[in-house]
Amino acid sequence: MPELFQVVTTAEANARLAGHMSTPGRVEMVPIDAALDRVLAEDLYSPCNLPAFPRSTMDGFAVRAADTHGASEGLPAYLTLCGETPMGRPPDLTVGPGQAIRIHTGGMLPAGSDAVVMVEHTQALDATMLEVVRPVAAGENVIPVGEDVRAGDLLFARGHRLRPQDLGGLAGVGVIAVPVMARPRVAILASGDEVVPADATPGPAQVRDINSHTIAALVRRHGGEPSMCGIARDDAAELERMARAALERADALIISAGSSVSTRDMTATVIASLGAPGILVHGVAIHPGKPTILAVADGRPVFGLPGNPVSTMIAFELFVVPALRRLLGVVSGDVFVVQARLSRNIASRPGREDYVPIRLEQREDGLWADPVFGKSNLIYTMAHADGLVQVPLDLAGLYAGELVTVWRFV
Amino acid sequence: MPELFQVVTTAEANARLAGHMSTPGRVEMVPIDAALDRVLAEDLYSPCNLPAFPRSTMDGFAVRAADTHGASEGLPAYLTLCGETPMGRPPDLTVGPGQAIRIHTGGMLPAGSDAVVMVEHTQALDATMLEVVRPVAAGENVIPVGEDVRAGDLLFARGHRLRPQDLGGLAGVGVIAVPVMARPRVAILASGDEVVPADATPGPAQVRDINSHTIAALVRRHGGEPSMCGIARDDAAELERMARAALERADALIISAGSSVSTRDMTATVIASLGAPGILVHGVAIHPGKPTILAVADGRPVFGLPGNPVSTMIAFELFVVPALRRLLGVVSGDVFVVQARLSRNIASRPGREDYVPIRLEQREDGLWADPVFGKSNLIYTMAHADGLVQVPLDLAGLYAGELVTVWRFV
Repeated sequence: MPELFQVVTTAEANARLAGHMSTPGRVEMVPIDAALDRVLAEDLYSPCNLPAFPRSTMDGFAVRAADTHGASEGLPAYLTLCGETPMGRPPDLTVGPGQAIRIHTGGMLPAGSDAVVMVEHTQALDATMLEVVRPVAAGENVIPVGEDVRAGDLLFARGHRLRPQDLGGLAGVGVIAVPVMARPRVAILASGDEVVPADATPGPAQVRDINSHTIAALVRRHGGEPSMCGIARDDAAELERMARAALERADALIISAGSSVSTRDMTATVIASLGAPGILVHGVAIHPGKPTILAVADGRPVFGLPGNPVSTMIAFELFVVPALRRLLGVVSGDVFVVQARLSRNIASRPGREDYVPIRLEQREDGLWADPVFGKSNLIYTMAHADGLVQVPLDLAGLYAGELVTVWRFV
Repeated sequence: MPELFQVVTTAEANARLAGHMSTPGRVEMVPIDAALDRVLAEDLYSPCNLPAFPRSTMDGFAVRAADTHGASEGLPAYLTLCGETPMGRPPDLTVGPGQAIRIHTGGMLPAGSDAVVMVEHTQALDATMLEVVRPVAAGENVIPVGEDVRAGDLLFARGHRLRPQDLGGLAGVGVIAVPVMARPRVAILASGDEVVPADATPGPAQVRDINSHTIAALVRRHGGEPSMCGIARDDAAELERMARAALERADALIISAGSSVSTRDMTATVIASLGAPGILVHGVAIHPGKPTILAVADGRPVFGLPGNPVSTMIAFELFVVPALRRLLGVVSGDVFVVQARLSRNIASRPGREDYVPIRLEQREDGLWADPVFGKSNLIYTMAHADGLVQVPLDLAGLYAGELVTVWRFV
């Protein structure tokens, strides 16, 4: 096939490739502690409520809220202290009218109680008499059953890349293994009569293989499993034989093509022969990286990347990364950002740095940071966030519409 | 030890920790293909020139530049075509005055020649007569010996985190294994009478361990080797025994502390007993995460992270990440950015996207993007860059001082 440059844009090139790729869809189960950055193959639903029982968020006293209504410094409520809730065991006591039971942060509310009075708002007059100087509303200082996540809730959708907080969230509901997409196997083939392996001593006019190593690391970084398939001579038959062998055991093939016109033509001819529909793009309106070849061989993407190391990396980012994401079915974004516009006011207190979980939203007018206001006891506050925004030490808050720096979760 | 909150700022907290940590400094050799994201333990110097011979960057003809001076469409230079340079073998021909030898991109310049005329600027009149219609300067379309990197040049400094292009660059000079810092071993200990392992079925009032899993993944993400050391009961003797055992085999210890005041006090007491100098920080001016404990036990950092999952993550990012970077001796930045101010004009051509390697520079007035102008044949163009800036399809360039979006290399 002669070099027939029909240069297309990056977007058009990716659209053509996407239109012909089939995704392999191999799924494997992995333990959560080995699932960092893996991509979920199925929607995951919660098998249980989290928490499964009403928990105190404070050290204090479990009470009936109504018993504290109207309480103040001047006119305290007086309750009878009936004991203490243990940690990790259900309280065997019941809070009756006018009664209080000591409770710790994370403890289970005893039957009969519906709120927790912070210890700071009480005074124990003796072993059984408690003075309460501030009223609490029903539910105050309590995480109700299922506030973090409810049984049957969608935890994470298919295509979600699992982050540390997501793994914590899965542990929290007892999901200790997850179905994830198998890593796409990406075969890497270098070519060129002048190229020798990195561990060889090049003769005069020979160079060591650089691109196989760069590409392998890029494949790994973007969730694939690279396999280096050697260096083909500038010989169509050898290149075709090696390319076919490489593609046989792979979900995608990357050929680091030679840079001269003749070897590029040869690479194109070989790629065209590997399977249907063959070459979709030969030449993209980018610099450097113009002579990039994109093809599909029986559902599997094949890339002819320019031989120059800089062009190789740019073409990889522009074309191979989206293809890997498609093979993995990745839905969540991968770009790291810091500047976004705040969607709502965030109140803070001077003298401390506040960190507020943020969900990032790409709108027509740019990137917006949407605060996720949730108790810090809830792991899914983090699982639902994309990053954090900091309110600096000396500010009383941040204003809606402000450009803020978002610390994006990797 | 009673809870004695002497709340300090994040910066002060990290400074105290840094002042008492010793770095373990264990070094290991790893093959470059397993070295992605590892941190160099030594300065690395190039054992050779790259390229080792003058290479053509174009398909064309190796000539003596002087023979083309004054050549134009109207008054071409006529040269005698004497043969072709092979790829991968040294040319056995010499270019004499008035002679030209066909050469391919990446080929070695024959003796006597000092420039390459692009094929587009020539016409072969017959098998031996070449018409040249554009002059070339000496060195034009040639990569001289050592232009990418010279023998003895510093390739990467100790503390550099190895990226895909760096591994390619190492392959290019035949460095196939590198000395890197061993991954810091980080022991993780959960605590709390109410906490059960994620694979257990919690009884009433019990919760599954969330934080160990989140923390382990965070440790892994930031270059450490996590080891989960179980769940300690709310019992000082048990916590101390498990903490000592965990720390014995680790470079750092993270205790996911309980949230109630009494268990926090117990955690502080245990941490204080693990080694000198003990607790350095107990309480930081952040929200959430205030009750964070930072300590050093005989050189090894010990963290008491608040039990709340959100606080845990924030305290991890603020205090554990810098400590891990210190243990690894990481020098290069890890924050992903997109907005920076361009330091110089970048010329481009409408109708194509240009990608220019960028070095990021943090100045007093913000982040600057400094274009790295280098031939795309040179791997160290990428190895010296922090990211890429895109000149969009429809622009003729970008201007110095403009705020540009930098695609940061991970």
